[in-house]
Amino acid sequence: MLLLRRCCSLTRCGPISTRRLKVAPAVTSCAARFCSSGSEDQSSYQCANWKHILAGLLAGTGAVLVYSQHRHKAERADVSVTITEKGSLLPVFSQDEVTKHRSLEDGVWVTYKGGVYDITEFVAMHPGGNKILLAAGGALEPFWALYAVHDQEHVLEILSEYKVGELCEEDLKKQQASKPSDPFSSDPERHPVLQVNTLKPFNAEPPPEILSDSYITPSAFFFKRNHLPVPQLDQASYRLQVEGLPQGVLSLSLEDLKTKFPKHTVTVTLQCAGNRRGDMNKVKPVKGLNWGVAAIGNAKWSGARLRDVLLAAGFEPGVAQWARHVQFEGLDKDVTGTSYGASIPLNKAIGEEGDVLLAYEMNGEDIPRDHGYPVRVVVPGVVGARNVKWLGKIVVSAEESSSHWQQQDYKGFAPGTDWNQVDFESAPAIQELPVQSAITVPADGAVIHHSDETLTVAGYAWSGGGREVIRVDVSLDGGKTWQVAQLRSGDKGQAPEPSPPPGRAWAWKLWEITAPLPPEAEELEIICKAVDSSYNVQPDTVPPIWNLRGLLSNAWHRVTVRLRRD
Amino acid sequence: MLLLRRCCSLTRCGPISTRRLKVAPAVTSCAARFCSSGSEDQSSYQCANWKHILAGLLAGTGAVLVYSQHRHKAERADVSVTITEKGSLLPVFSQDEVTKHRSLEDGVWVTYKGGVYDITEFVAMHPGGNKILLAAGGALEPFWALYAVHDQEHVLEILSEYKVGELCEEDLKKQQASKPSDPFSSDPERHPVLQVNTLKPFNAEPPPEILSDSYITPSAFFFKRNHLPVPQLDQASYRLQVEGLPQGVLSLSLEDLKTKFPKHTVTVTLQCAGNRRGDMNKVKPVKGLNWGVAAIGNAKWSGARLRDVLLAAGFEPGVAQWARHVQFEGLDKDVTGTSYGASIPLNKAIGEEGDVLLAYEMNGEDIPRDHGYPVRVVVPGVVGARNVKWLGKIVVSAEESSSHWQQQDYKGFAPGTDWNQVDFESAPAIQELPVQSAITVPADGAVIHHSDETLTVAGYAWSGGGREVIRVDVSLDGGKTWQVAQLRSGDKGQAPEPSPPPGRAWAWKLWEITAPLPPEAEELEIICKAVDSSYNVQPDTVPPIWNLRGLLSNAWHRVTVRLRRD
Repeated sequence: MLLLRRCCSLTRCGPISTRRLKVAPAVTSCAARFCSSGSEDQSSYQCANWKHILAGLLAGTGAVLVYSQHRHKAERADVSVTITEKGSLLPVFSQDEVTKHRSLEDGVWVTYKGGVYDITEFVAMHPGGNKILLAAGGALEPFWALYAVHDQEHVLEILSEYKVGELCEEDLKKQQASKPSDPFSSDPERHPVLQVNTLKPFNAEPPPEILSDSYITPSAFFFKRNHLPVPQLDQASYRLQVEGLPQGVLSLSLEDLKTKFPKHTVTVTLQCAGNRRGDMNKVKPVKGLNWGVAAIGNAKWSGARLRDVLLAAGFEPGVAQWARHVQFEGLDKDVTGTSYGASIPLNKAIGEEGDVLLAYEMNGEDIPRDHGYPVRVVVPGVVGARNVKWLGKIVVSAEESSSHWQQQDYKGFAPGTDWNQVDFESAPAIQELPVQSAITVPADGAVIHHSDETLTVAGYAWSGGGREVIRVDVSLDGGKTWQVAQLRSGDKGQAPEPSPPPGRAWAWKLWEITAPLPPEAEELEIICKAVDSSYNVQPDTVPPIWNLRGLLSNAWHRVTVRLRRD
Repeated sequence: MLLLRRCCSLTRCGPISTRRLKVAPAVTSCAARFCSSGSEDQSSYQCANWKHILAGLLAGTGAVLVYSQHRHKAERADVSVTITEKGSLLPVFSQDEVTKHRSLEDGVWVTYKGGVYDITEFVAMHPGGNKILLAAGGALEPFWALYAVHDQEHVLEILSEYKVGELCEEDLKKQQASKPSDPFSSDPERHPVLQVNTLKPFNAEPPPEILSDSYITPSAFFFKRNHLPVPQLDQASYRLQVEGLPQGVLSLSLEDLKTKFPKHTVTVTLQCAGNRRGDMNKVKPVKGLNWGVAAIGNAKWSGARLRDVLLAAGFEPGVAQWARHVQFEGLDKDVTGTSYGASIPLNKAIGEEGDVLLAYEMNGEDIPRDHGYPVRVVVPGVVGARNVKWLGKIVVSAEESSSHWQQQDYKGFAPGTDWNQVDFESAPAIQELPVQSAITVPADGAVIHHSDETLTVAGYAWSGGGREVIRVDVSLDGGKTWQVAQLRSGDKGQAPEPSPPPGRAWAWKLWEITAPLPPEAEELEIICKAVDSSYNVQPDTVPPIWNLRGLLSNAWHRVTVRLRRD
């Protein structure tokens, strides 16, 4: 039964890539042969033959062969088997045997809690892309400790389908003895008000109503979006490398950044590409952290301009002849030593109006560890993912960052594109974000008393690319009629921030509207939608912008409140 | 009855402006008094008193007073009256008397076909804004000859409500004798395939299917959007003035532009702010030309860079300390000598990546007269209205253009904003346009035969601000499912245009999809929607973006086709 499911899955995922397409007929016929080969004499198959058969077939066929073979062998041949919890018989492998399967050609095997899994087939379907190959031949545990998104029942269910054997007891004990210490053990303390999405790495957002209470989001309440453990960095030994320019490498200390370049302060809203993913999950499940509306915040960032640093490192107009991108590498690393990385277009990095900062202060203080201490890039108007924290290296390059997060993540796709079809090369890396707004008050499901007579609705609105929010429309009747909200660029009773020059509106606007409660209503569907200076608007509904990673969720925000008379 | 309507209208339009709000109670009470004053002795009112009463009241009250007064007078007093076509009695005025009413304070009177109209009240409601004051004290005819949008039945209906008298016969004859020659008589010939919206000024678009047949739109088929008559300009005597810079005025001949500055060629899509206004008109009538989907075109423009010309005229970084805008004035003029005008932000004009041209060629030839011969501004990524044709003057300034089209038109408002509430100062002038796409083939209502088996859908997609279109989704089932269309940046079988640098994608993409006809369907609702490089998308539906001027109409484009079996 499981085999049949695997066969179906194989056929279904045929068109994953050109190379895989070519082998699809072979796979199908092999699978069919094994499905119907129960009466054939399988005794000639020996354990030692497996590798040869695997080597003779391309990725994806291995799993089917291995699995069907060990079913037959378990019944007839003299191989070492064990009885699993579910009572099925599975072969036992040594760690050495597992370690031989570290590529699509040789098969991709991993271990997890003493089980051996051939995940060759799954590599192309992995939401995290080829990164999964880092675990090939070894244990999944240290990776899953890093990427806690795997700690979900459906992930274990998927894994279970790929089980091909058990790890021999001796090697399992060794593995358990060498269990690494928790890589997140030195993460900083966080404020308990934060709503945690994952603890390791730490991903959390504040309660939405906090956002509209303060034009500048206090650092403690600013959403945290970490991909890896927070590195322990020392101000004195910190060095930033600037590479790729004709003059060679420039190495800067924190002191250099603070003293050799003018200090600029820019108020910038940062938003996670996955903000409001929860709305997409309601339409159809997506892969990613289930953010609410508060994976966004507005802070005053201070530091050196990236432009100034690049000029000091030798950037001159001739560089623009061949360079196209500026890459950033974080000092946060996974177990293999791979850093978080991203890049932005060169013209954004070097432009006088790009306002890209190498920031060492957030809201007037040293940047907190969760936000990139001692230095992070702040790329105004651009998705959070490119605002690399714990910045270690800047590379001027003809190429985009090759990092997983630039190439295999943080891209948008059509609603019809699923994990079997998705081609990450077909979409550009998200840079500027689209226009966004959300209601922070009242909360969805809130109960309002008719005695209040009026209702105040508040929220935030922001757009990427420096496009200023020029209007927010609010409806209390599910979109039938609209009122224009009051916008503000500062706290109530305080002077607003000065108007930004055109195309450089990096900060959000808070908005509010107070309206009479409709006397007869029992329920209100409240909606907000923003318009930016390019007159782009938010789409009405979620399904037409749904995408498999749940990114760019910027449909009208809707909350429903109930009205009570008692 | 008519008076009552006027009273209601007065009360309704109270909040037009602060100044008007202040007089609203007085207006209402005056109106009420006159509404109920039928039994009062009115014989003391003399013709000569009118002016005094008018002078004692602010704008808006005049209309009610004058109107109610002449009704009473007509019944009782010894004044010159005439019987109108509808049988009502109206006083007769001399042109001299009419000429005295040229301001909101003195009342705004106009004549039209021998009638005298007090339009003081209407000024604030005029879709064309204060421009209407140009006609004050004189005849409407020469203006309406220029602005043919007035040639509509509902405009005459509105005017009729403001009638206060007749022009005396002698002055009417003088007016008719001095009737100006047709200011559009020297407009160029146009291709008969164009679908004409108004002849004078000429506004026309090609049949949509022509657009997707050619990546570069031939000039003859490029939509024409003229606000005034096409001026007759001579290449030899043409001069362009550049003003507002510390060095003083720079005057350039066409030869100067062609020889003193490098020639640049940029492929730029221009779109009218009112493109697809027809879709908004279907929701609720809007004011403006009823454009279909083809008020957009893509051409190769060649000329000098505005940046280079501004630098030659003395622009230096210090100018950016006080200057914010670059204004353009056309050489097309209305009867009062007022030119078409517009402005763009300084950073767009002077930026190295703005690519703003003073173009003297369109598609490799002299710019045709309808498109701005001999020189027009081409502002890539920005609404057509700022791409001033027949360019006569460039002014570097701290202020936006004060022209009607910059201040009182080409702005977007919320769907709930009507002509009684609209405050043009509350919205920014449209510059960058939002993401757009439309289906050009098949036409709405087309009949497709099932024997065709497949259906090809084609169209264009573009976004403002240099944001590249990265995807077009097409649905054949009213939005339930979506397919990704093929995009192209050139004609079929030809090499595509080179990829633009980030943020400088000024040209549209054509797109196409061929899909099997659903065997059971009798009708298909075909939809397209585009995504640009900032991942902005088009809104689902028209009503939430409806606005009183019908601008920025970029909801999903939908066409319905019928499928036939015979």
